[in-house]
Amino acid sequence: MTPLLKRYLERISRGVDRVLDRLLEAKTGEPRRIREAMRYSVFAGGKRLRPTLVAAGAECCGGRSRDVLPTGAALEMIHTYSLIHDDLPAMDDDALRRGQPTNHKVFGEALAILAGDGLLTYAFEIAAANARARALDGRSAAELIRILAAGAGTAGMVGGQVADLDAENWRGRPGPAARRLLESIHLRKTAALITASLEAGAVLAGGSGPERRRLRAYGRAVGLAFQVADDILDVVGDKVKLGKKGSDARNRKLTYVSLYGLERARREAADLAAAAHRQLRPFGTRARVLHDLADYVITRDR
Amino acid sequence: MTPLLKRYLERISRGVDRVLDRLLEAKTGEPRRIREAMRYSVFAGGKRLRPTLVAAGAECCGGRSRDVLPTGAALEMIHTYSLIHDDLPAMDDDALRRGQPTNHKVFGEALAILAGDGLLTYAFEIAAANARARALDGRSAAELIRILAAGAGTAGMVGGQVADLDAENWRGRPGPAARRLLESIHLRKTAALITASLEAGAVLAGGSGPERRRLRAYGRAVGLAFQVADDILDVVGDKVKLGKKGSDARNRKLTYVSLYGLERARREAADLAAAAHRQLRPFGTRARVLHDLADYVITRDR
Repeated sequence: MTPLLKRYLERISRGVDRVLDRLLEAKTGEPRRIREAMRYSVFAGGKRLRPTLVAAGAECCGGRSRDVLPTGAALEMIHTYSLIHDDLPAMDDDALRRGQPTNHKVFGEALAILAGDGLLTYAFEIAAANARARALDGRSAAELIRILAAGAGTAGMVGGQVADLDAENWRGRPGPAARRLLESIHLRKTAALITASLEAGAVLAGGSGPERRRLRAYGRAVGLAFQVADDILDVVGDKVKLGKKGSDARNRKLTYVSLYGLERARREAADLAAAAHRQLRPFGTRARVLHDLADYVITRDR
Repeated sequence: MTPLLKRYLERISRGVDRVLDRLLEAKTGEPRRIREAMRYSVFAGGKRLRPTLVAAGAECCGGRSRDVLPTGAALEMIHTYSLIHDDLPAMDDDALRRGQPTNHKVFGEALAILAGDGLLTYAFEIAAANARARALDGRSAAELIRILAAGAGTAGMVGGQVADLDAENWRGRPGPAARRLLESIHLRKTAALITASLEAGAVLAGGSGPERRRLRAYGRAVGLAFQVADDILDVVGDKVKLGKKGSDARNRKLTYVSLYGLERARREAADLAAAAHRQLRPFGTRARVLHDLADYVITRDR
C-alpha cells in the first residue's frame, strides 16, 4: 500500500467512524438492544473501503470528502448489514468474522436479522439527510437513493448473494458459460456496491454524466479484480494474516483459480487493474488515491 | 365496512396490484428465484391497507391517488418484507400466513431472508423514482425517504419488533408501566408504518406542515386502535374468518385484553377512533375515506 493511500484510508476511516458513532447513538423510542447489536458489527473492524470510495469519487468530481462522509457511513451500514445476514445459520453459518463472534452468536438470530434490517433502513435515511444537507435538487436526491438501492438490491448485492448460493457445489465445466456465471456473481456481489459508492460520491459532488460513467467502469474493474485477488489469496495467502482458512477448494466452489489456475487468474487481475487505471485518465491528479487503490487491490496479502 | 370505503379499497388495490406486478417483473441481471420469492409474498392476498393510506393521505392534501401509487407499492413492499422476516424460524416461526405456506417454507430460509432484504431495498428505489416523477424538490424528495426510513426503522417498525420480542412471556403487573410498554410496542410495530404511509402521501401531494401533523396524529390513533381491536379479536373473534388461532393468552402475551379486560379494551378502541375522527375535521369531505376507515378498524370481524 502506498503511503498516500494509507494516509487517505486512515483519514477517511477516522472521519467516518466519528460520523458512525454519532449516527448510532441511542435514539429516543428505540430499544437499547438493537442499537447495541448494530454498533457491535459496525465497529467490528472493517477497512471502511466503501466510505473511502465515496470520498474519492466525490474528490474526482471536485467535491470535498468531508461533505460526503454521511453517505460513506450509509454505504458502510449497507455493507455491514449484508455481512450480518450472510453469517446467519440459514446462509453461510459462520461463527466468526475477523476473529470475533458473529452478530447472531452474540445477540441471537432474531436480533441479528433485525439489526441487519435496521442498518439497511437507516442507511437510506442518512443518505437522504446528506442529500438535503448538500442542497441537492430533487432529481439528484432521487438519483442518490436510486444508486444505493440498485447497488444493494436484487440486480446488485442481494442478487449476487442469491447467485452465489446457486453456484455452491458447482459441478459445471470450465468454459465461457462458467466464466460468465462467475463474473455475473462477482459483478453483483462485490462490484455493484463498490460502483454505487463511487457514483454516490460523484452525484453528491455534482459530477457529470461522463465522469459518473468512468467511475462506474473503474468500480466494475476494481470490484472484479478484488474478487480475483480474493480467490488467489484463498489458495496462496497467509492464513494468519487473512484470518480465515482456505475453504474454496474444499467446498468445490466456482472460483477464478478453480476455473483458470493460478497463473491465468493472476494475469486476469493485472488486466482488470490496467483497465481500471485507464478509466481514471481524464481525472488527472484528482484520481491519485483511486490509482493507488487499483494497484493495492491486486497486490494485497490479506 | 361502508360502501364508500369498500369501493375505495378495491380501486386502490387494483391500481397498486398493477403497479406491483409491473415493478416485480423480471429485471435483467437478477436471479429468477429471488423475484419469484418476492412476488410470492407480495401477491399472497394482503388488504393493501398501506397503499390505501398513501392514496387517502395524498387526497386529503389535494393530490390524486394515481400519482402516488408507486409509493403505495413501496409501503406494501416494506410491509411484506416485515412479514417474511417475522415468520422466520428465528422469529415467530410461522408455517402459515393467511392460510398459505410462509415464504421460507416454500423457498427456504436463505432465500426468504434475501427476498425480504430485496423488497426493503427496492421500496426506497421506487419511492425515489416516484419523487422524481412528481418533480419534488430536493428537500421534499429527501423528506419522503426519511419518512419511509423512520417509519420502518429502529425507532419505528423494526424497533417495535424488538420490543415485541422483549415483551414475550411478560411477567409484569397491570399498571401505568405496563400500559406504556404496550403502547410503545404498538406505536412502533403498527402505527409507525401507518403514519409513514399517510405522511408519504401528503408529502407527494405537497401537503402543509399542519396537514402532515394532523395525518400523523390520525395515523397514531388509528394504528393503536387497530392493535387494540386485534387483541380483542384474538379473544372473541371467529377463528375461521381470522385465519389464525387465538394464541395470545396461551403465550402469556402482554395485550390490551390481558391488561384491562374486554370491556375496557373496547372503550379504549372507541376513544382512539374518536380521537382519529377529530384530527380529520379541517380536511372536510376530502377525508371521508379516512373517517370510514377509523370506524372500520374497530368494528371489523377479521
